[in-house]
Amino acid sequence: MNSTKNNKPLEKAVVLLSGGLDSATLLAIAIAEGYECHTLAVDYGQRHNAELDAAGKISKALGAKQHRQVKIDLRAIGGSALTDDIPVPDADINSQDIPVTYVPARNSVLLSMALGYAEVAQANGIFIGVNAVDYSGYPDCRPAFIAAFEALAQVATKAGVAGQRFIVHTPLINLSKADIIRRGTELGINYGATVSCYQADVQGRACGRCDSCELRKQGFIAAGISDPTRYS
Amino acid sequence: MNSTKNNKPLEKAVVLLSGGLDSATLLAIAIAEGYECHTLAVDYGQRHNAELDAAGKISKALGAKQHRQVKIDLRAIGGSALTDDIPVPDADINSQDIPVTYVPARNSVLLSMALGYAEVAQANGIFIGVNAVDYSGYPDCRPAFIAAFEALAQVATKAGVAGQRFIVHTPLINLSKADIIRRGTELGINYGATVSCYQADVQGRACGRCDSCELRKQGFIAAGISDPTRYS
Repeated sequence: MNSTKNNKPLEKAVVLLSGGLDSATLLAIAIAEGYECHTLAVDYGQRHNAELDAAGKISKALGAKQHRQVKIDLRAIGGSALTDDIPVPDADINSQDIPVTYVPARNSVLLSMALGYAEVAQANGIFIGVNAVDYSGYPDCRPAFIAAFEALAQVATKAGVAGQRFIVHTPLINLSKADIIRRGTELGINYGATVSCYQADVQGRACGRCDSCELRKQGFIAAGISDPTRYS
Repeated sequence: MNSTKNNKPLEKAVVLLSGGLDSATLLAIAIAEGYECHTLAVDYGQRHNAELDAAGKISKALGAKQHRQVKIDLRAIGGSALTDDIPVPDADINSQDIPVTYVPARNSVLLSMALGYAEVAQANGIFIGVNAVDYSGYPDCRPAFIAAFEALAQVATKAGVAGQRFIVHTPLINLSKADIIRRGTELGINYGATVSCYQADVQGRACGRCDSCELRKQGFIAAGISDPTRYS
């Protein structure tokens, strides 16, 4: 699904950037593939803003063309430990259940926003850092979901109706956390600037205990790369 | 696609309610069909809030179970006269072009939000007031778009993966504006409380000149029903 720099040098893409490890790697990959990148950070009422601050800095550091941030208050809908007052659970990354940190329809909302931005920016690529390996049971991180969204994009937009083909790129989907860290390290990412923790403090320091911290920690160990994460 | 009161008396539905004429009629239809209705108004940075105020009042007046309002700032993405500083054009309802009042991916965003709310409220119905007759060329008001979204909903959610079937109900899709007004009048709606204008003033009074005003005005004339719209 990806294009090389030599084939299509001027293609534009919207890259969903959270400020975490995965999406920083995603942006580095999109840029390495030759896309003019328009990054989009969505503030969906998550508990911490350190991740959003990191997103803006990473976008600039990696050389994106433009960065935008959209606020959408998913707390008004509720149903998740990330947006409600339910305590974030400690790690249980071997569980087969869908975790309480699942935000209902989150990736549908994120991709819809990215699609709107893509249409305005005249981009035909959308990059999203979903991962089917470490996805902890989130239904909207699977290839079937991505395919359904691509089908929607074609009929949902003025550009799609006019014949433009939207492609949702998911270069991380089959990578382990260690693979992602190795790839990003090759591309020169400073992971100390990224924030993955579900409950980071205001300085962006990680709790070291939640699912996201646990996956990240194990990823650095498995990659054999020293972990630059700042813990509180 | 609709159920009757006698067949499924306790089904829940999320109803997207803008405060305009169409969605007020939509809610009245959903309630008449026996659904327990959870209304959702989305503030997507449109210029006027009179329509949102009307939504809350209409939800209560028609007997919805719950009303929620979510703010999402689509102005950060731009591309539309409804959210940017482009002047709203006067009516040209016979044009075949997609109008500048088209908001990129708007109905994808709205339905994604409704899907998240439906999952939290354990509703399997979503009602949206799209219309393929007077839709002024919006791609995301067509049956093909609705079908693609239903397909997405099945794979996007925990409930869908667990086997729940989400249905997107579009009872207005093939109705003319006059048909909608006749149906709503039968159901007892006070259309004086609804706001359809793209640039209503703070008291909810309509401009009388935009596409939306023109369609509404002609609808009352065609229905042979006296127009209770408050004009500025």
